[in-house]
Amino acid sequence: MTHKRLGILGGGQLGRMSALAAANHGISCHIFTPEKNSPASQVSDKTTIAPYDDKTALQAFANDVDVITYEFENIPVETVAFLKTLKPVFPDEKLLEVSQDRVTEKTFLNDIGIDTTRWKQYESFHSAQDAFSEWNTDNLILKTTRFGYDGKGQSKLKIGDEINETISQLNGEVIIEEIVDFDYEISVICARDTHKNMVTYGPMFNEHKDHILHKTCIPADIPSEIQQQSISMVKKIAEEIDLIGVLTLELFVTKDKRILANEIAPRTHNSGHWTIDACHHSQFDQHVRAVCGLPVIEPVRHSDVEMLNLIGNDIELIKDYVTNPNAVIHDYGTLDVREGRKMGHINILKKKS
Amino acid sequence: MTHKRLGILGGGQLGRMSALAAANHGISCHIFTPEKNSPASQVSDKTTIAPYDDKTALQAFANDVDVITYEFENIPVETVAFLKTLKPVFPDEKLLEVSQDRVTEKTFLNDIGIDTTRWKQYESFHSAQDAFSEWNTDNLILKTTRFGYDGKGQSKLKIGDEINETISQLNGEVIIEEIVDFDYEISVICARDTHKNMVTYGPMFNEHKDHILHKTCIPADIPSEIQQQSISMVKKIAEEIDLIGVLTLELFVTKDKRILANEIAPRTHNSGHWTIDACHHSQFDQHVRAVCGLPVIEPVRHSDVEMLNLIGNDIELIKDYVTNPNAVIHDYGTLDVREGRKMGHINILKKKS
Repeated sequence: MTHKRLGILGGGQLGRMSALAAANHGISCHIFTPEKNSPASQVSDKTTIAPYDDKTALQAFANDVDVITYEFENIPVETVAFLKTLKPVFPDEKLLEVSQDRVTEKTFLNDIGIDTTRWKQYESFHSAQDAFSEWNTDNLILKTTRFGYDGKGQSKLKIGDEINETISQLNGEVIIEEIVDFDYEISVICARDTHKNMVTYGPMFNEHKDHILHKTCIPADIPSEIQQQSISMVKKIAEEIDLIGVLTLELFVTKDKRILANEIAPRTHNSGHWTIDACHHSQFDQHVRAVCGLPVIEPVRHSDVEMLNLIGNDIELIKDYVTNPNAVIHDYGTLDVREGRKMGHINILKKKS
Repeated sequence: MTHKRLGILGGGQLGRMSALAAANHGISCHIFTPEKNSPASQVSDKTTIAPYDDKTALQAFANDVDVITYEFENIPVETVAFLKTLKPVFPDEKLLEVSQDRVTEKTFLNDIGIDTTRWKQYESFHSAQDAFSEWNTDNLILKTTRFGYDGKGQSKLKIGDEINETISQLNGEVIIEEIVDFDYEISVICARDTHKNMVTYGPMFNEHKDHILHKTCIPADIPSEIQQQSISMVKKIAEEIDLIGVLTLELFVTKDKRILANEIAPRTHNSGHWTIDACHHSQFDQHVRAVCGLPVIEPVRHSDVEMLNLIGNDIELIKDYVTNPNAVIHDYGTLDVREGRKMGHINILKKKS
């Protein structure tokens, strides 16, 4: 009996839930992370604690595993490129490159015919002036092109505001985006295996609080043409990128029913955590299957579900749900509570409607 | 944020699935086992590899955890008694004592009004002669009082057979049991917490092959009075023993509809593995909850299910099920296939009838 051994770059909750899913397949995991006592290492066979540019540690890590994946998008592309010379790494770093930079990402999306909000790369204060006049608006949003997440690395700009201060605060390359008057936010997840089989979850209906996902509902009570379109969009991206693994597409639906791509996550996603308890096979199971050369599988959903994110002190809510027979608790085992930190989630299940 | 740390004696698949369930609650596990590369240690934060009588190792293990449990019944009672002086151990060793010895077990069951097959402790060849005549039968079964499992440590005896050879082969104390002409086998699982809340799973309908569980079906297509009686029986045992944790009662149903207790397992059970995928909360979740001071919870079953055990080379069946959207695979990650070894199981789900 041989079992693959899976190397995971990153020790966060997504790595943790992937390691738990790998266990079902008898696959043991080795986590590579700069962080001590990471959520993923608590449930994995082995952990290497080292920086992502430590080539000696990366080499030893690669020697110990059969295949490598990553659990979040801010892994340096160089790390993945180096590891790829030693062992297979999925998804390919092409997806990482696309999703790490908002300009590359939006260029890629627009090139394959997927609409986004209007955008411009910031070059000088003229870029903002042009945007105000071309888009006939008084408000813009400026974002760093890289390393932004959960509302970090972005700032609104009103017409007449002094732009230089905003730019210097954002620190790095900046993209200017139109502020969309959207009606709601959805996301779709796609898993694709080495045989090009594809399966999807969603669309999910997402509610945010302070720029962080607060709640996800399935099924999403939205028109079927929006559902179909969003699924086609994520499949299109997966095919164009020749995905092996899982990716997630975050979308805005505007009041006039246009669907605009917001972001690609090159990985499993917070809005897919409901799949663990409401489906026969979760997004993490599909991720492990795809990267380990197993077939992805049509997900059967047996229950309706509302996923409640536990951010920072929300973790205390667990005591209210621990006696609820329809609530499944997921506590990531993080020792220190920090504001804005994803500490866990609760899946509240009900009979399928 | 404080999380309990759970120590588990034993590194097998039951410990593995308990550790996976503990992860949902943010509880990290420390496994104590004499075995290297055990299934449980692959998914746990820490492992101590040492014999069960190594007091120095046990002491260090106890220091590192908040509460201790065991995953199988053949842990020496002395080990549990020693650890209990250092940290809480659940279930109490009283349950271990009862379930480790067939004579103690049957005495306990009969004393609390639960029927078993007729039995006699073997003292001399007269015991067997008496059994043949008193029970008016030509066939008996002789079993070692301790350490028997999956049909090991037992032998049939026909009237007129030479008994001494059988006794010497069985090696140790022996119990004589009537051979029951049973119609089918069922099991029921009970979880009970520190606040004496009790929940049950089952009864499950079990099929064996070569004395090892082959298949479990839920719901069991059996009369409702048998269902009710079996649930009452397991609850009675849990209360009498003042259970904190999980126990399982294996039962025979005879052709004349009598229910006879066969064995008590002081732990989660192979016939409860379906609960992982067909219920909001599994037997392992209840076990972790109970021993860690959390409340057990009424299990909601969302699907019907057939659990197929994978024994030895059966593990190869996985490739037939890996593309079945209704099949959830559980491969225990055991590296060497051995005849009779429990390698994994598959839960085949369908819509609740």
